[in-house]
Amino acid sequence: MDNLGEIFLSELVGTALLVLLGCGVVANVALARNKGLGGGFLMVNFGWGLAVFAGVTVSYSSGAHLNPAVTLGLLASGADLSAGEVAIYILAQLLGAFIGAVLCWVAYKQHFDDEPDAANKLGVFSTGPAIRSYGWNFITEVIGTFVLVFVVIGFGRAGDADTATPAGLAALGALPVALLVVGIGASLGGPTGYAINPARDLGPRIAHFVLPIKGKGTSDWAYSWVPIAGPVVGGVIAGLASGPLLPLVS
Amino acid sequence: MDNLGEIFLSELVGTALLVLLGCGVVANVALARNKGLGGGFLMVNFGWGLAVFAGVTVSYSSGAHLNPAVTLGLLASGADLSAGEVAIYILAQLLGAFIGAVLCWVAYKQHFDDEPDAANKLGVFSTGPAIRSYGWNFITEVIGTFVLVFVVIGFGRAGDADTATPAGLAALGALPVALLVVGIGASLGGPTGYAINPARDLGPRIAHFVLPIKGKGTSDWAYSWVPIAGPVVGGVIAGLASGPLLPLVS
Amino acid sequence: MDNLGEIFLSELVGTALLVLLGCGVVANVALARNKGLGGGFLMVNFGWGLAVFAGVTVSYSSGAHLNPAVTLGLLASGADLSAGEVAIYILAQLLGAFIGAVLCWVAYKQHFDDEPDAANKLGVFSTGPAIRSYGWNFITEVIGTFVLVFVVIGFGRAGDADTATPAGLAALGALPVALLVVGIGASLGGPTGYAINPARDLGPRIAHFVLPIKGKGTSDWAYSWVPIAGPVVGGVIAGLASGPLLPLVS
Amino acid sequence: MDNLGEIFLSELVGTALLVLLGCGVVANVALARNKGLGGGFLMVNFGWGLAVFAGVTVSYSSGAHLNPAVTLGLLASGADLSAGEVAIYILAQLLGAFIGAVLCWVAYKQHFDDEPDAANKLGVFSTGPAIRSYGWNFITEVIGTFVLVFVVIGFGRAGDADTATPAGLAALGALPVALLVVGIGASLGGPTGYAINPARDLGPRIAHFVLPIKGKGTSDWAYSWVPIAGPVVGGVIAGLASGPLLPLVS
Repeated sequence: MDNLGEIFLSELVGTALLVLLGCGVVANVALARNKGLGGGFLMVNFGWGLAVFAGVTVSYSSGAHLNPAVTLGLLASGADLSAGEVAIYILAQLLGAFIGAVLCWVAYKQHFDDEPDAANKLGVFSTGPAIRSYGWNFITEVIGTFVLVFVVIGFGRAGDADTATPAGLAALGALPVALLVVGIGASLGGPTGYAINPARDLGPRIAHFVLPIKGKGTSDWAYSWVPIAGPVVGGVIAGLASGPLLPLVS
Repeated sequence: MDNLGEIFLSELVGTALLVLLGCGVVANVALARNKGLGGGFLMVNFGWGLAVFAGVTVSYSSGAHLNPAVTLGLLASGADLSAGEVAIYILAQLLGAFIGAVLCWVAYKQHFDDEPDAANKLGVFSTGPAIRSYGWNFITEVIGTFVLVFVVIGFGRAGDADTATPAGLAALGALPVALLVVGIGASLGGPTGYAINPARDLGPRIAHFVLPIKGKGTSDWAYSWVPIAGPVVGGVIAGLASGPLLPLVS
Repeated sequence: MDNLGEIFLSELVGTALLVLLGCGVVANVALARNKGLGGGFLMVNFGWGLAVFAGVTVSYSSGAHLNPAVTLGLLASGADLSAGEVAIYILAQLLGAFIGAVLCWVAYKQHFDDEPDAANKLGVFSTGPAIRSYGWNFITEVIGTFVLVFVVIGFGRAGDADTATPAGLAALGALPVALLVVGIGASLGGPTGYAINPARDLGPRIAHFVLPIKGKGTSDWAYSWVPIAGPVVGGVIAGLASGPLLPLVS
Repeated sequence: MDNLGEIFLSELVGTALLVLLGCGVVANVALARNKGLGGGFLMVNFGWGLAVFAGVTVSYSSGAHLNPAVTLGLLASGADLSAGEVAIYILAQLLGAFIGAVLCWVAYKQHFDDEPDAANKLGVFSTGPAIRSYGWNFITEVIGTFVLVFVVIGFGRAGDADTATPAGLAALGALPVALLVVGIGASLGGPTGYAINPARDLGPRIAHFVLPIKGKGTSDWAYSWVPIAGPVVGGVIAGLASGPLLPLVS
């Protein structure tokens, strides 16, 4: 039980930090009168990648999943996780993501108030498609999350026993997974904004729904299943594929 | 006493380098006729992050705080610092920041002379709000500095005894804290320009006030308490929160 | 035989990931209605560099060549590779690159459909010259690939026995070669778009030729020999030059 | 004598690679019809930083100075270098820089031919001031090179005996010095384009002077002493200052 409590706290803190910084960079680039307004997509990619860097760093005691697709992908790859642990991981991730989104709203409160476009406000919290088509959007999220989880598992198998942790925490700290997320964003983020994490999308969407954001519009619940189902499917496929495709090198 | 002298020199040199390079990137992007004019917010983020990289590298013998919010946050987290040491750290940081700002002015002297906008000149030295509202600006600085100090403490607790120093100097050198500052800038720098360091803001503001800068305007002392109080409060909260939220992993 | 099978699978998976992410960033920047549209050349450089990062990470068991020019360059440098192994490496790289390009097309399917310019579509798959002149284009590819293979061999000779692998997998994982590719793209990618890898160019070109891409134009087979011959020549020269120019430091 | 030959070859190869890639990124950003045209100052900063990364990687057997200001700065800091070794270092750096500039011209030959502006062509080879004033330009180069050499010496003193080499080759390879050069460029490159290396500026200037570049203008010899004298003075000051300001931590 003590272990479950530690997992819960660690994942909650890490995911809150991830989402605070991740949603923060979108706020900076997209909301009126910010110093980073119009900073470009590469800045968003680095912002999310370094958000992962910070979140993973403070979440080492639970292995820094921070993402239900990672948790389920590791389970599919054969990781020793009980049903209760999986539930605790995902619950903490969702709650952490909600808290992070609330903090982002507080940090950018005046800019939310000044921003005239409701779609920009929702875009800070949750992803949306560039061209709406649930099937294709789903496929893009499957592919992006497959890459994330497959390479994360790869980090734990390359060469050195010291780095044999899912997040590659030892030798390079949280750096590899951060760089991976910068890359996935730049390379596969064009069509859907790369949720690649159900908690990162659903937690902030709930926050958008409940917070008293000035002039907010719809929370676009019709789309909300795509950044949940796509990442879960992509993560599980990656976990299953890692057995035959990623041999453990010692 | 010898130890105090070494701390003083190390923090002074490191903070001078930090501020020279940090203010320098703003000068490059903002002042007339520079080769980097209009280089964008991401360039400013990398400039400040790599300024931290350089400053931390030359300040290893004192643990490379370079920031009163880090010193006070470590104190709040239970670090073994005497009152005299804390005073020496902060004094050296302030004086170093002042010196760094003077050097930046010298390096960019002709561009300060050519720049017509007094606000751009002050912006090289000190932060200012995108939307002035002392309460909200204060909160944004609290959140940004909380992230900085909380994750810096996290670097010292992740995995390996060799990296158990505040700045994570051993395995990756100054790289983790540099990347963290790039990320905080991109993600939380929009509303206030991310002072997240009272010395970084006050030292250069004093330099702006006393230097014979051509066509300079106000030093905006009315705002000056925000980038002092916000970072101090955020850093202390991070130090207090690190006990329950960041377990030491061995 | 078992070893050949492992090489084949490892190179196929790694090159598929490399090309999925590499072609992906070009799609994001160049195809209509993407969130990264117009993201700039530096974003493309980081996208390709981090594509290498991901591909090398999952391809550690075969040494992560992912590029016939690397395989042939290592052979020229004296690496112990049989003719059969070389053939398996190159075949797997070509097939992997083809698969990666198909996946990229799937991930960006709607944006390919919406993009009006056929040249932009081909540009996602394969490189083309800024100023067509086969001789000069060839020379530029020779120089770029020489730098790639020469420095990759250098990674394996610097200092530490732990890092003495072609891709420098141990100490810094796939990071050095990723950064190198960012640099080569920024510095030598202007004239030809830096194929520097025959598989990366030919595999996707075949995919472009056979896939039912809406409104696609020519696959520009007239140019296709340049990004094959240039990289092969550059890689072999680098391998030969590494003996006298890169002494092994112990 | 054997040692002098090894130093000569290593510095020549490393500096040639440094200048090929460094001048290359400027060519890509500045010359007509390149794919990276208008890529921005941050792209130039990363290009030069990663040029250092590549050059240092292949030059480990001589300690990878690649810069007379580094050689003279290390000498001033007390490094054990004979007069003959210093001469060999600097001669090899100059010759390497010349060769690298010639290779850059070859790689970008058609774009040099197409570029209408002679100043852009010279700008690929050598630095020039944004606002011409030899005194202030000299001071900016002194400050920038001081930072370079001071922090490079710092890399060799931080913490770990394994990293106690000027270029910090062991633990992080060439990464620290590469990041430092990205940072100096972003932060101090605005007024003069950051030569911070006499060989990097003079070698290519000679190449510009002797090469049959179509439509080239002046090689601006009147300015050429600034990026020689400024870096030498800054490097020597850094070497002298490193004794009192950078204590060796064991």
